[in-house]
Amino acid sequence: MNVIVMKFGGTSVASTEKLKNIADIVCKEAIKNKVIVVLSAIAGETNKLQSFLDDFETQYSAESDLVLTSGEQVTIGLLSAALKIKGIKSIPLLGWQIPIITDDNHEKAKILYIDQKRIIKYFQTNDVIVLAGFQGISLDGKITSLGRGGSDTTAVAIASSVQAERCDIYTDVDGVYTTDPNIDQNAKKISKMSYEEMLEMASTGAKVLHTRSVELAMKNNLTLQVLSSLTGKTGTFIVDDKQLIEKEIVSGVSYSKNEAKVTISGILDKPGISAKIFSLMTENNINVDMIVQNISQDGVSANITFTISRKDYELTKSVLEDSNKILEYKALSLDKNVAKISVIGMGMMSQSGVAEKMFKTLAKHEINILAISTSEIKISVLINENHTNIAVKSLHDVYNL
Amino acid sequence: MNVIVMKFGGTSVASTEKLKNIADIVCKEAIKNKVIVVLSAIAGETNKLQSFLDDFETQYSAESDLVLTSGEQVTIGLLSAALKIKGIKSIPLLGWQIPIITDDNHEKAKILYIDQKRIIKYFQTNDVIVLAGFQGISLDGKITSLGRGGSDTTAVAIASSVQAERCDIYTDVDGVYTTDPNIDQNAKKISKMSYEEMLEMASTGAKVLHTRSVELAMKNNLTLQVLSSLTGKTGTFIVDDKQLIEKEIVSGVSYSKNEAKVTISGILDKPGISAKIFSLMTENNINVDMIVQNISQDGVSANITFTISRKDYELTKSVLEDSNKILEYKALSLDKNVAKISVIGMGMMSQSGVAEKMFKTLAKHEINILAISTSEIKISVLINENHTNIAVKSLHDVYNL
Repeated sequence: MNVIVMKFGGTSVASTEKLKNIADIVCKEAIKNKVIVVLSAIAGETNKLQSFLDDFETQYSAESDLVLTSGEQVTIGLLSAALKIKGIKSIPLLGWQIPIITDDNHEKAKILYIDQKRIIKYFQTNDVIVLAGFQGISLDGKITSLGRGGSDTTAVAIASSVQAERCDIYTDVDGVYTTDPNIDQNAKKISKMSYEEMLEMASTGAKVLHTRSVELAMKNNLTLQVLSSLTGKTGTFIVDDKQLIEKEIVSGVSYSKNEAKVTISGILDKPGISAKIFSLMTENNINVDMIVQNISQDGVSANITFTISRKDYELTKSVLEDSNKILEYKALSLDKNVAKISVIGMGMMSQSGVAEKMFKTLAKHEINILAISTSEIKISVLINENHTNIAVKSLHDVYNL
Repeated sequence: MNVIVMKFGGTSVASTEKLKNIADIVCKEAIKNKVIVVLSAIAGETNKLQSFLDDFETQYSAESDLVLTSGEQVTIGLLSAALKIKGIKSIPLLGWQIPIITDDNHEKAKILYIDQKRIIKYFQTNDVIVLAGFQGISLDGKITSLGRGGSDTTAVAIASSVQAERCDIYTDVDGVYTTDPNIDQNAKKISKMSYEEMLEMASTGAKVLHTRSVELAMKNNLTLQVLSSLTGKTGTFIVDDKQLIEKEIVSGVSYSKNEAKVTISGILDKPGISAKIFSLMTENNINVDMIVQNISQDGVSANITFTISRKDYELTKSVLEDSNKILEYKALSLDKNVAKISVIGMGMMSQSGVAEKMFKTLAKHEINILAISTSEIKISVLINENHTNIAVKSLHDVYNL
């Protein structure tokens, strides 16, 4: 039994016309394979429900999950009806009806187990299962939600559990690009890339897929395809790197303007000082990204630079200002006006000179590098936000993308 | 364990403020008793979902039920959160979580079974259960809906299954009145009435409760109270007639303008002719109410008069016109401009002269009676619609209501 999983997000189901369009797309696939369609709620609906919850100023997350998961019930019912009108044998199912068992960590539950026997049974009498994304059920019988990007996670998890041939993630773009086409019109659609590259892309600003679902696909060696529900063209395949015969040295350039830079200067260079700083951040739920530490010129004190989400700017400032007694630093400076630029590619591992080329290119355009961080397949630099476009364009150009 | 069931309809849950008001009302009851709250979806929400379904022109009722039952999930989550904020131990539950088992007659399912053991278990750790009305689950695991007035049915059914002390139905009026206060400002709230009186009231135009829920309460000898969620005043109790010590001869006057009159004249007075007419009506899904048959003056042919819903006027006309060959009638006349006026009271059974008083009163006001139908506790007459107000007022007056 060949199964294809097709996931459509909130903007793809936002009107009757769009749902009928999805029914057409699903029909074409259902002629060839058994299909599991995973749907989100209608775009905007979840925000509306969230604003109801905000009116109650509630932190009761079991109740929140119950309210927030009602939207998918509408879209799966409508799509299943649209499919039946086209003569397709279809059944709409909620998370608990499979069931998709999760832990009881409401609003960000993790999937523990999916009963694939039930899915096989449903396929005995149906060609298409229309499944509500984003939701599951805890072991004590309460409805849970998977948090942000939850429908992608549902799609990848169900595809993994039935060993689907492929999981197609339909969006409003037709694939993953070498960089943001809004910044550089020479950006090209990538036809095939590795999970690792996609993960680096996602974590450095490309918002096509949530890292959680890519990690899950990688773990289960499941082929993903990102494609458009409007054009119907082949999209970008995300696969195991063994399937990439000729690895691109650099496959993409991404950027993120969601950054702020923190520099703490003149701290005592002794063991445990970094730990102190970053426990403070953890205690306050502040996510830290790039971290750079250097001995300062006097040879006894150190400087630490790191980046945070821009939304945590004020909180970080006040936490660090209040902690001078513990940290005993000389100076503190924060900067909101920064951007992170990353070049990503599997081929980087076996190829030298990628970093050098990046730094040279930025220097040529008189762009100052504020911090550098690297992984095996990624180099990220922090620069002044005003230089984002020119940096992205020149790097996209110099690596022949 | 004393349990009170409290049901709130769609207008009572239509805003954050109203839901907080319900939380206040429930709190007061929860100090004294265990409480099951049954909620509808936000008023207008079900119509919105229905219009989505209409866009698909679908008759797939399993899908319709899935879409239509999503609204209660929102209201029960919100109310449970509001109760927790007030320190009440509360749990929101969907129909399938109890479960409320129904047949698989989608869009108008009948409740087969409610597992009261689960409810008792939930009450071990909670003071209030907030239950979604209108919905259940079929034996093959599909979500079903109970049709019109379904939340009233849920409330009465769950109250019966746990042998609740009382089932309070909150509405936007503060009880059942002796007649419509919009027509006669002397209308008085009835403090106590029998199931039978309520059933006759409901079927003759008073839209406070659905007959289905009253029938279910009567079958289980469950005390109902109709009251307002705004005033908090004691409402109308609906009880077994044995609890009514002094039975009112006439307890109310109701009216319905939803009628049309059909008269078929000059049909052969032979066995089977009525059966032919009413099978025609059944075949076309036309509901027939009052039926009057008389020998006509010539002594060989008969006249039949009956009433139908006004919405079926055109259909009935064409069905009967097309059937002259079978029915062989002399004349057919239909009249949309009629109203049904009913006087209702348990005491009528043991008291003569109620009908006489009715006919005399109408005659005094020169109101012509077009047809009469009676039950043990009700007399209904059909009159010209234009006389509705004066008929209701004068009857309300003459029976000292």
